[in-house]
Amino acid sequence: MKLLRFGETGSEKPGMVDGDGTIRDLSSVVGDIAGKTLSDEGIARIAAIDPATLPAVDASVRLGPCVAGTGKFICIGLNYADHAEEAGMEVPPEPVIFMKATSAICGPNDPILIPRGSEKTDWEVELAVVIGKHAKYVDEADALDHVAGYCLTNDVSERAYQIERAGQWTKGKSCDNFGQIGPWLVTRDEIADPQNLDMWLTVNGNTMQSGSTRTMVYGVAHVVAYLSQFMSLHPGDVISTGTPPGVGMGQKPPTYLKAGDVVELGIEGLGTQKQECFDDA
Amino acid sequence: MKLLRFGETGSEKPGMVDGDGTIRDLSSVVGDIAGKTLSDEGIARIAAIDPATLPAVDASVRLGPCVAGTGKFICIGLNYADHAEEAGMEVPPEPVIFMKATSAICGPNDPILIPRGSEKTDWEVELAVVIGKHAKYVDEADALDHVAGYCLTNDVSERAYQIERAGQWTKGKSCDNFGQIGPWLVTRDEIADPQNLDMWLTVNGNTMQSGSTRTMVYGVAHVVAYLSQFMSLHPGDVISTGTPPGVGMGQKPPTYLKAGDVVELGIEGLGTQKQECFDDA
Repeated sequence: MKLLRFGETGSEKPGMVDGDGTIRDLSSVVGDIAGKTLSDEGIARIAAIDPATLPAVDASVRLGPCVAGTGKFICIGLNYADHAEEAGMEVPPEPVIFMKATSAICGPNDPILIPRGSEKTDWEVELAVVIGKHAKYVDEADALDHVAGYCLTNDVSERAYQIERAGQWTKGKSCDNFGQIGPWLVTRDEIADPQNLDMWLTVNGNTMQSGSTRTMVYGVAHVVAYLSQFMSLHPGDVISTGTPPGVGMGQKPPTYLKAGDVVELGIEGLGTQKQECFDDA
Repeated sequence: MKLLRFGETGSEKPGMVDGDGTIRDLSSVVGDIAGKTLSDEGIARIAAIDPATLPAVDASVRLGPCVAGTGKFICIGLNYADHAEEAGMEVPPEPVIFMKATSAICGPNDPILIPRGSEKTDWEVELAVVIGKHAKYVDEADALDHVAGYCLTNDVSERAYQIERAGQWTKGKSCDNFGQIGPWLVTRDEIADPQNLDMWLTVNGNTMQSGSTRTMVYGVAHVVAYLSQFMSLHPGDVISTGTPPGVGMGQKPPTYLKAGDVVELGIEGLGTQKQECFDDA
């Protein structure tokens, strides 16, 4: 099942995509794609509905981030061996985690805002995991039971802020509109193997990233179990699992985004995103 | 004015402290100590009420974190020169920022939970700033206009997770019950100078930290303006501004918390906290 949120920023409604690709309004059924709606029971309740009984929504509607109530936006760093190499870093002996500000979250096709003075705004196509059930000290074998589903993210990053501006990556990861999430939260029953999904990203039509979650170092189940040793994961938390090679920082010479550039990205089964870049006002 | 939240975890009500030190129930006036309630207008609305007209609350009630709706829990690292020295680090050329998980937030006297397997759980008394009004690209001269008030935090930290477990401090800062906030949000009009507040912390009655916000490297106004260059700050966001010397890691030999230890801490004008340590279940 493909769940989404549509409407203006801050007042999105819950929706789903029916078998014909039409968006259906779920707001008579659930309050939002958040909290208990993300549990197995919540998802089963939606799955039991005949989508044809729900109002159709115009396809031109703005999509918001496909999940709400995100308390944590956690990212895994250097989680593809080839990307670690292009970044000039070692593959870490255990997952590297950092946080993006939840205020960076926006819809899948919302613009990338280049922060004032930024010269190194970069892209990162990533597979994200949405937590559906509280997870703490869970084993890897049970970890996926705590996952509601998967979605596409662009972990937009300012490399100078991340690396050259006095320690801790969060500074280069948290700018407004640095976290496009969606178009859909695809429930986990529809993703047979999260470690076998092709992924890609283009800038102005030129392919920059082309990879697969097959080459992820620490897979989804490991990451969820690992994180749960350090902190409680709650429904709506988003974990972005790292990016394959081809980021701007890794080009020769390095290439970064500027106003007017168009970024498109996708992951097999999880849809696509398209963003235009603007200088932040 | 001293605002607070009282009641069981997850169902706290808003309250305030009257001139006699009695807690008064504000739930007939505001929904929570969050969002618009933190604006100048929201605070003025509460200030206009005669506390004697509000129900008194038993002093033995549990206190929750004094602010709700916290989207970001941002910390400033190495922001006291003497603490940087004891940590064996340089004072950074600009503020170091990192994030604590908002799921770490708890009430001021809630226990410190020592994570499974942890051997280096440590304390940090800190002055925290609560944002009252959206801040983005603000100047230092205007920064305090965006602050609702101040509160006391314990930035509990697991040093092995922070430093020895593969990059990025957030891993050692985000465990459950690693962020005691309160007892009160003291509105900014009551704190004449946030850079002149004595602060202290004891473990089992022994003074470990004794300092003042006078020796903070990057002051509150600078930190708020600085952060706002990188991301939007929203009402309810909490910024913890760093700790003075005397953390466990800096003792000779290093000394860490164990089950049964009692931590007490305070900042001039912002009240005190008292926490017992337990092994996390």
